[in-house]
Amino acid sequence: MSTWFIRRRPAVELPRLTPRARPVATVRVDLHEAMPDLVPYLGQAAYLQLEQFETLSRVAAEAEDLRAKEPISAAAGHALSKHQGIVAELRRRGDDPAAAMQPFAAEIEGFSALLVGADWRETLLSALVTGGLLDDFFIRLAGGLPGDVGPRIAHLLGSESGQEGVLEVLRAEIGADPLLGSRLAMWGRRLVGDTLLVARSALHLSGNRATDEERIEPIFTELIAAHTRRMDALGLTA
Amino acid sequence: MSTWFIRRRPAVELPRLTPRARPVATVRVDLHEAMPDLVPYLGQAAYLQLEQFETLSRVAAEAEDLRAKEPISAAAGHALSKHQGIVAELRRRGDDPAAAMQPFAAEIEGFSALLVGADWRETLLSALVTGGLLDDFFIRLAGGLPGDVGPRIAHLLGSESGQEGVLEVLRAEIGADPLLGSRLAMWGRRLVGDTLLVARSALHLSGNRATDEERIEPIFTELIAAHTRRMDALGLTA
Repeated sequence: MSTWFIRRRPAVELPRLTPRARPVATVRVDLHEAMPDLVPYLGQAAYLQLEQFETLSRVAAEAEDLRAKEPISAAAGHALSKHQGIVAELRRRGDDPAAAMQPFAAEIEGFSALLVGADWRETLLSALVTGGLLDDFFIRLAGGLPGDVGPRIAHLLGSESGQEGVLEVLRAEIGADPLLGSRLAMWGRRLVGDTLLVARSALHLSGNRATDEERIEPIFTELIAAHTRRMDALGLTA
Repeated sequence: MSTWFIRRRPAVELPRLTPRARPVATVRVDLHEAMPDLVPYLGQAAYLQLEQFETLSRVAAEAEDLRAKEPISAAAGHALSKHQGIVAELRRRGDDPAAAMQPFAAEIEGFSALLVGADWRETLLSALVTGGLLDDFFIRLAGGLPGDVGPRIAHLLGSESGQEGVLEVLRAEIGADPLLGSRLAMWGRRLVGDTLLVARSALHLSGNRATDEERIEPIFTELIAAHTRRMDALGLTA
């Protein structure tokens, strides 16, 4: 690992949702040693997009208003396209997509169960929060993939997700129900912790807590900052 | 209505699933008078594709085997694309897609509830049977639409639906479970009647039973023949 790439900094607890008092220098982190191998990376990323598709299409079915169904089903379609793009990448390499995804089945199905909210608005926020965080995370990891796969996958994951349409639906719902905002803000906070655990599970960690935290923390700080911006876009406190 | 287009024939009961003793001449039918107006046609067709997308994506989520999830989610994606294509057609004409679909909400949501089977295999057969029948029906009706909309919609509805992949999944399930075939055959029979009622609801009927049946029956005979071929492809008796 190129040491000039890393600067020493204290390990901190994760997830960290409030700004801390101590100002920190911006760091760039080499994830080289923590990078998952290519096939598990693709398998997990493909499964997460499938899960995102399943969550969003369930919400599209539950939302009764046709004006809400349309952007939500469109977002489901985008997640399905990303899933299919990663599956195509696995096939192109001669790998069996189902075999590559299978090791993540139990974890992701368990995660998926946590995303089901008390109503479709909560579940839609789940899709927005977890989809946004995990897309960002896997795009970030893509930089460490061998050959030309990384840029292709980063481009695919960064392509249209229908997030704007979903934000509009949620904004309209929050505007129409004065109690919904605080309920969703609380729900969003719960989701972040679970989602960061999924992200963390993708990495090869050393088991040395201080080293691992030092490596992961700057990335998670970025992810949380992007998450906070998404919640801000809903007028919600992250 | 051009009378040479029609030949007199006795009215019969619908749906008719068994061959009848009396041989009948092949007839072509002018649906002109029974044709729905353009916007209701597009609204109902768009809603039915949305419903098909919702049913298939629910099944994709319920199927645990990743090798089944893939073709089923792909079929869901095709239904979503068709839905979006019809919605785009409405927008292009300056019509509000949600307003065009809304009149069909109660009927289609009720229909959708009938499609939920005892397990995902039954629900998948529902999607195959109703999707196939209704696509065929709306393609048939498209010939009566004004201007160049008809050919465009017929092309869209006739485009890839992922039916082959769904058939393969069902064939594998039937092969693995000796009792499943007869259960699905029975389930398929129940679905046809409900689906033909939805098709029938799209038409402007005169209220004169004999005239209406004479007009509709040849089309429904065609639809049922195509349905029988789909069930045959599963080794099931329609």
